[in-house]
Amino acid sequence: MTRLRFAPIPASLPATVPFTGPETLERRSGTPFVARLGANENGFGPSPRAVEAMVRSATEIWKYADPDNHDLRHALAAHHAIAPEHIMIGEGIDGLLGLLVRLTLAPGETVVTSDGAYPTFNYHVAGFGGHLHKVPYRNDAEDPDALIAAAREHFARLVYLANPDNPMGSWHPGSRIAAMLDQLPQGSLLVLDEAYAEFAPNEAIPRIDPQDDRVIRLRTFSKAYGMAGARVGYAIGPVDLIAGFDRIRNHFGMNRMAQIGALAALQDGEWLAETRRQVTAARDRIAAIAQANGLTALPSATNFVAVDCGAEGDFARRVLAELAGLGIFVRMPGVAPMDRCIRVSCAPAPELDAFAEALPKALSRARQG
Amino acid sequence: MTRLRFAPIPASLPATVPFTGPETLERRSGTPFVARLGANENGFGPSPRAVEAMVRSATEIWKYADPDNHDLRHALAAHHAIAPEHIMIGEGIDGLLGLLVRLTLAPGETVVTSDGAYPTFNYHVAGFGGHLHKVPYRNDAEDPDALIAAAREHFARLVYLANPDNPMGSWHPGSRIAAMLDQLPQGSLLVLDEAYAEFAPNEAIPRIDPQDDRVIRLRTFSKAYGMAGARVGYAIGPVDLIAGFDRIRNHFGMNRMAQIGALAALQDGEWLAETRRQVTAARDRIAAIAQANGLTALPSATNFVAVDCGAEGDFARRVLAELAGLGIFVRMPGVAPMDRCIRVSCAPAPELDAFAEALPKALSRARQG
Repeated sequence: MTRLRFAPIPASLPATVPFTGPETLERRSGTPFVARLGANENGFGPSPRAVEAMVRSATEIWKYADPDNHDLRHALAAHHAIAPEHIMIGEGIDGLLGLLVRLTLAPGETVVTSDGAYPTFNYHVAGFGGHLHKVPYRNDAEDPDALIAAAREHFARLVYLANPDNPMGSWHPGSRIAAMLDQLPQGSLLVLDEAYAEFAPNEAIPRIDPQDDRVIRLRTFSKAYGMAGARVGYAIGPVDLIAGFDRIRNHFGMNRMAQIGALAALQDGEWLAETRRQVTAARDRIAAIAQANGLTALPSATNFVAVDCGAEGDFARRVLAELAGLGIFVRMPGVAPMDRCIRVSCAPAPELDAFAEALPKALSRARQG
Repeated sequence: MTRLRFAPIPASLPATVPFTGPETLERRSGTPFVARLGANENGFGPSPRAVEAMVRSATEIWKYADPDNHDLRHALAAHHAIAPEHIMIGEGIDGLLGLLVRLTLAPGETVVTSDGAYPTFNYHVAGFGGHLHKVPYRNDAEDPDALIAAAREHFARLVYLANPDNPMGSWHPGSRIAAMLDQLPQGSLLVLDEAYAEFAPNEAIPRIDPQDDRVIRLRTFSKAYGMAGARVGYAIGPVDLIAGFDRIRNHFGMNRMAQIGALAALQDGEWLAETRRQVTAARDRIAAIAQANGLTALPSATNFVAVDCGAEGDFARRVLAELAGLGIFVRMPGVAPMDRCIRVSCAPAPELDAFAEALPKALSRARQG
């Protein structure tokens, strides 16, 4: 920059593009993917009622969305049997995480997360000048004891935990999460990312008073509701904290069709139940494919399965690269020892057929490599 | 907040909700508006090709959007005959303004704008701890000389100017804007908001080298393209500055249907031309309605018209309130002497018919008030 320098925090951030989408990989290779199994998207798709509602509203896209998100917020409040003042809707969990970090973290303050957990949260913490302290996973799961200990030691403002976990698919009982709240040091807020909650067993979901000021929960329409491209997420938390978002959020930032589609999706409980059944079957199928290739699928409470490739991270990275060359988009954990796994999203039969066909070839090539 | 305090900057911000949408007003009054003429939305609507593209892609909303915005970015580059590296796509101009402020402004640094200009820009400046210096309008237009003088005096990092202007509809020749760049102090960046550029005469659009590091331009699909609810805007600027957005933006923040719809809208030049004709006719119609009521419509290079109500701000505020009571949603400038006007968005005939019917009643009631 010859003329204008960046502000100090952005100036300190890496200039590289931090996220690579599958479309970029396709453009680089010149070949579209046959199966898109890398982003935990839900290929079973959105409720037909959501599609219908979006289609019906398409010609009205000339109107800004209601900045208050009134209808969706009230429907979510009824869904969770809480007051609407406990809910903030935003542009996906990613957007809400950025706002939450900005709202609560002063530059230089510390945040605790697990080494290998959701990178977008870390991106936002760095992006607002926060300091990240990472604790290791334990038995392929985030470690509540280690998170709490680190929060106490480092006076963490925020403690991030995803339950169920991404990228491993593991989960803790809700009672364990609730117990964390009593152990959390004064001044720390638990950021409980429940993006995959709808796929998890009921016992994984803690019972938390929405006014409890020790925790904020994050939910999304991107996973179980099959609307990742719509960008609708929501936070549940104490009224004062939720109201704080209004000080800084982009009030007219929501897409109007997304708002309308999410409302219709929420009202289609049957589709959600059917999605859950299909995801469960797809998890079993991925496990069977893994087993047929001498690999081990880890238990999952999400719409993806971590498949242990049975060797060091370098081998799993070769498997992933070979799969990509065969038209299969998957991703994998970035940190050892979880990086012995590849992470495969649940999907309809044709995509899993393609994965089943490609996996033995990819393994064979990776073993030769 | 008993437990968690906000970070210092958000803690210093007002707790009130800064923006009130028409839906909130409707819920308060219990009556839907008959004519939505307050947000400069484009009721002539989006291109049917954009609608068709969005409808066709609705079932694929389970996919995240391409975080690189490749196809739309390249189409915009071709449209403007510049390299795609000069373009950053984001969630409307509002979203891009927030990112720009965050990217360039350190807390406590100064920004110059006009008193009465776009409030969302001011919201973002305050939201990132910036200091706002405002200069008065001159003859119902933003005053380039005053902006430049203030930028020099206060070492402004950013200088905001909308051309054509909102809320007055006035415009400066592009040559005047280009001349500002040579007068701009070292270290200042001109933020040139061209949200209404497609409605303006060609002479209003400056010819600027996209690599010129003294200016960033902002455009949108919300106005002429009739897609306000989609949330698609873009910035044009020097490569280093544009690349800076990648350090902080929400990479997976775009709605996938919006991306696809905007691309189709861009390719429908005929619809845009027809929209321009309809907007021009609607401007004339609003002026005629004003004249028939003894009021003066100000010249406009946008899709709205500032109508001078011929008295102090208090009278215009009463007219606005009476119009709302009659089902007509309009807004008005917030600062004297521009607040003698109400601001009426161009719209199809039925909405302007309703405005024409309501205005004499509203004026009469306001005069009695």
